[in-house]
Amino acid sequence: MAETQAANGAQPAGPRSTLPVALDAMGGDYAPAEVVLGAVQAATEYGVGVTLVGPEPIIAPELAKHDTSGLHIDIVHTDEVIGMDEHPAEAVRTKRRNSITLCHELTRDGKALGAVSAGNSGAVLAAAIFTLRRIKGVDRPAFGGVFPAANGKRVMVIDIGANTDCKPPYLLQFALMGTAYMRAVFGDESPKVGLLANGEEETKGDQLTQEAHRLIKAAAPTAGINFIGNVEGKDINGGEVDIVVCDGFVGNVVLKTLEGMSKMLLDTIRQELTAGPITSVGALLAKPAFDRVRKKLDYQEYGGVPVLGVNGVSIIAHGRSKARAIKNAIRVARQAAEAQLPQAIADGLTRLGPSAADEAPVTSEAR
Amino acid sequence: MAETQAANGAQPAGPRSTLPVALDAMGGDYAPAEVVLGAVQAATEYGVGVTLVGPEPIIAPELAKHDTSGLHIDIVHTDEVIGMDEHPAEAVRTKRRNSITLCHELTRDGKALGAVSAGNSGAVLAAAIFTLRRIKGVDRPAFGGVFPAANGKRVMVIDIGANTDCKPPYLLQFALMGTAYMRAVFGDESPKVGLLANGEEETKGDQLTQEAHRLIKAAAPTAGINFIGNVEGKDINGGEVDIVVCDGFVGNVVLKTLEGMSKMLLDTIRQELTAGPITSVGALLAKPAFDRVRKKLDYQEYGGVPVLGVNGVSIIAHGRSKARAIKNAIRVARQAAEAQLPQAIADGLTRLGPSAADEAPVTSEAR
Repeated sequence: MAETQAANGAQPAGPRSTLPVALDAMGGDYAPAEVVLGAVQAATEYGVGVTLVGPEPIIAPELAKHDTSGLHIDIVHTDEVIGMDEHPAEAVRTKRRNSITLCHELTRDGKALGAVSAGNSGAVLAAAIFTLRRIKGVDRPAFGGVFPAANGKRVMVIDIGANTDCKPPYLLQFALMGTAYMRAVFGDESPKVGLLANGEEETKGDQLTQEAHRLIKAAAPTAGINFIGNVEGKDINGGEVDIVVCDGFVGNVVLKTLEGMSKMLLDTIRQELTAGPITSVGALLAKPAFDRVRKKLDYQEYGGVPVLGVNGVSIIAHGRSKARAIKNAIRVARQAAEAQLPQAIADGLTRLGPSAADEAPVTSEAR
Repeated sequence: MAETQAANGAQPAGPRSTLPVALDAMGGDYAPAEVVLGAVQAATEYGVGVTLVGPEPIIAPELAKHDTSGLHIDIVHTDEVIGMDEHPAEAVRTKRRNSITLCHELTRDGKALGAVSAGNSGAVLAAAIFTLRRIKGVDRPAFGGVFPAANGKRVMVIDIGANTDCKPPYLLQFALMGTAYMRAVFGDESPKVGLLANGEEETKGDQLTQEAHRLIKAAAPTAGINFIGNVEGKDINGGEVDIVVCDGFVGNVVLKTLEGMSKMLLDTIRQELTAGPITSVGALLAKPAFDRVRKKLDYQEYGGVPVLGVNGVSIIAHGRSKARAIKNAIRVARQAAEAQLPQAIADGLTRLGPSAADEAPVTSEAR
């Protein structure tokens, strides 16, 4: 059964692997029901502990709907919740005991492996930076979004929206942080890093990209970055690149373009398939194939978007997360924590030497 | 039958509607065969004249394969052709009589309604600017790409690659030029213009976008721009916006992301459908529906990418254009010319007053 634990209680941190993942029970469109269900599924399937953070009077009855015997699920109570439309930094500052911040405090204080929330992503970023602090040497923490790619592969696009205006050294750090994540979570020792541009040639790109290209190319051997040069939009899902580096403005546009396009395409196919009796029969027979396509393209499999560059694990699940997405985000949080992701990023930065961000031309700020 | 006409010959220009479209016979992956076929189809279906520009000894035999009786197709000979991998501006400068430049000279000299090429798009841009010149007041000519959108609609994204680093006033001009084009070619009197950003709120976007938002919003009533504010990547294909304005770096990434995503999705569906006997039967029955989907999503229907902002009509067809894409590009060139597109853009710019590009902050140049 669930047990309640005070957020600022004195419970000593156990050995790492027995720590729970702190989960914002009130985050996302389907909270708390699907979030709690996701916690139960994760605890059942992976044997991971989960600390649900949010209003106990809401969460406890939800949790009571499930058989939690033998599972390690507890509740940390707070009344304060940040809405999806609230101003992120302001909400985090004024609601000191909001569920997102508490998840990060549990992580900071060694009471949780990491924080997971499907809520306001700006608030998660703010809480992660305020609470966990940036890793020494990181100029800008970033969001690394993982998407399906061709041939059953997956690709990380970093940054997908934390930083709209970037300097070239930020992009170098994105390459490094993305590499550390793909190693930690996907076990890919030498993920291929591409720089997103409007052409493959080294001379292509806007000023930001051209400067970033030079920086990454020069630093790659030292930093352990497997840099394959510029990649284009068509390469993102092509399966030949594992990490696509870009500023957060472009990354956000790409992310939402992919979402919109796949929706439009699948909608069009559905409309056409059901337009006549014969194609409808065909669609029925073909349904198992479409189900497999949908599963292959499902973001829920990929476990959410890590906030990279802070001293701890912080994972943002999609706002429309159902239980499975939450379950996978919890799994990813544990993997990232057990692989000591923040330490891996810190080590990479040390190898790289001091950041050159302050030496970058002022003009680059305009991206 | 085809007749040969000297590029610099003295043939007087007839009344506007009897002028041919100048077509680069050597441009694109399937030139000259598919290009010539496209010319024959356009001449047959639309009664439009076509001047094929390129090496006569190659084009004439290709043309002789078709029944051209009653069609207005002639050839302007030149030996000089620009390859897809040549440096655009340099090639246009050194190969003075290349087929792309000649198409634009015919247009400039009143011997053609407009120029169409599926060749090196950078060379088309360079030739268009060198030969036709920028419309007075235009800071940067731009590429306006037209794509399929939801519910059988279409959307123009401008700029999709002519200008990687933009200032805010360029984006205002893109909005204006896109509006003129959608009026001229699609008969849409008040196309909805959105500014591509990482969120719908006016405060979203990088510095370039935020400044452009203010400029476009302020100028919209005077310039006759139906500005609906910021749009996101997911809105591009949503059918609710007709023109999406962005810099050429972002536009190019979006364009190629859409191409890559739809290819990946359709490939995955094909693989899964043919993976088993039952789904294969389903796929066979559903084939007519898929054919309709493919047709709906086919860029070939949209007639190529106009170079907007020069004194004349210049259309770039996709490098992989088959005959149908060429035919549609020819149709679009005639429509744009008959609607006096360059004049419409010039009128809009006059209403707008002098460009503010030189007053824009230097930092914006970095995009």
